Amino acid sequence: MKQIESVKECGGYLNRYRHDSRACQCEMTFSVYLPPQAAAEKVPALYWLSGLTCTDDNARTKAGAQRFAAKQGIAVVFPDTSPRGEQVADQPDRYDLGQGAGFYVNATQQPWSSHYQMYDYVNSELPELIEQNLPLVAGVKSVSGHSMGGHGALICALKNPGAYRSVSAFAPICNPLASGWGQDCFGLYLGKDRSAWAAYDATSLIESGARVDDILIDQGDADEFLDDGQLLPDNLQAACDAQGQPCTIRMQPGYDHSYHFIASFIGDHIEYHARYLKS
Amino acid sequence: MKQIESVKECGGYLNRYRHDSRACQCEMTFSVYLPPQAAAEKVPALYWLSGLTCTDDNARTKAGAQRFAAKQGIAVVFPDTSPRGEQVADQPDRYDLGQGAGFYVNATQQPWSSHYQMYDYVNSELPELIEQNLPLVAGVKSVSGHSMGGHGALICALKNPGAYRSVSAFAPICNPLASGWGQDCFGLYLGKDRSAWAAYDATSLIESGARVDDILIDQGDADEFLDDGQLLPDNLQAACDAQGQPCTIRMQPGYDHSYHFIASFIGDHIEYHARYLKS
Repeated sequence: MKQIESVKECGGYLNRYRHDSRACQCEMTFSVYLPPQAAAEKVPALYWLSGLTCTDDNARTKAGAQRFAAKQGIAVVFPDTSPRGEQVADQPDRYDLGQGAGFYVNATQQPWSSHYQMYDYVNSELPELIEQNLPLVAGVKSVSGHSMGGHGALICALKNPGAYRSVSAFAPICNPLASGWGQDCFGLYLGKDRSAWAAYDATSLIESGARVDDILIDQGDADEFLDDGQLLPDNLQAACDAQGQPCTIRMQPGYDHSYHFIASFIGDHIEYHARYLKS
Repeated sequence: MKQIESVKECGGYLNRYRHDSRACQCEMTFSVYLPPQAAAEKVPALYWLSGLTCTDDNARTKAGAQRFAAKQGIAVVFPDTSPRGEQVADQPDRYDLGQGAGFYVNATQQPWSSHYQMYDYVNSELPELIEQNLPLVAGVKSVSGHSMGGHGALICALKNPGAYRSVSAFAPICNPLASGWGQDCFGLYLGKDRSAWAAYDATSLIESGARVDDILIDQGDADEFLDDGQLLPDNLQAACDAQGQPCTIRMQPGYDHSYHFIASFIGDHIEYHARYLKS
């Protein structure tokens, strides 16, 4: 991995890296915020998975996480949302499919399967790479994300028991099997067999017995994608209630789907993860 | 003025407005963050003047001011950086002249003088407009800004004794008469007579006896425009020292010119202004 940028923020460094990804078979870009504490000791990491259309840049610029990460002594890892490049399949006329819309799955269908292996990338390749090259405590990580990335955070934690200390999400796509975005993209990335989809659906995973210690979700009640039936937090809550999975979904009155919503509550989430990461 | 957007953030509302500007003779867009306290009472306002290439959007998205403004009960006003529109003179091949680069002066030279009256816009027209239409305490305001907007903040405060309770800046252009950006733009906006330039130069204003209670400046020592001689904080400090003008310039080691630098110290500045605005 090659460092291509370093910007000081809140006493730490917001660095950007590029590397040739084995999982995605292309050059990938990601950012890591290293808090001031990382100059003297290894620190735990929070992985932040971004939503549709984002790169590694959106959250690092707009979420305001670095201030709280610096306070808590936690690194924040910002992966990209899909493989990239001219040789990578894309659907440029759609924001919800192709580049910028990897949905954190391992695609099995052509033309997507050659590069769209974001599940392996985020859960295996990227942590191995950065734990070897940066001052991070190996194996001590948590995961959060927004919208498509909230879905990503939930499935990463649910599918990898013990790998993540804690999981939270902002306005996640809780049940892609039942949402327009999910049905369409999962069909193209994973094929027609819906049982393959369920392996990447947080609500289905909980219904099938997957467990984590706890789940924290913030959801704005003025979120257009909530009204639109893309997010479906009620389905997740029902599955959690039925299965005895602890889950706190905070409906935040008046908030929308934007980074202004994330910035309003990111401090709570960083604090929440810090309790797990530092215990 | 017409509200064109409203986004909830940190309990308050980040609103965007459009209006026909008398000063700039074009339609202008600006944003105002109203903290939660503004729902019940009038609040004082901090005007934030942005830098070259910015609109009202950059600081509201990247500076992280809203969290602190909400805590302190202060509105933040984000004006645009120049007049806009097809009928407005521009130099599209330059980022430092024309639209996005108004330098907060009243231009006297054609083709700029028809619309580039940002000094009157920011100091008179905009405050009158929003104090009439929003829950703001009339006449209780402070000013801050970044780079070209830091220059703007300094001259607004220095040229209007008593109008602003306090002034601060991030990496301001402290002495445009002696910097490349300033010499070039002031020549075009204000003509060849350098005495006209001095009326919009913070260092010259202080040398000529202008005074404010205090000045707070943060400046990154890894700022490329500092090395480039565009910002010249030493000139301002020397003028302040010679004239007995209180001025604290904090050289921040390792920080650059970006919004990541601003986000690192915006909390200090909001707190600084709150002390004046609420006393």
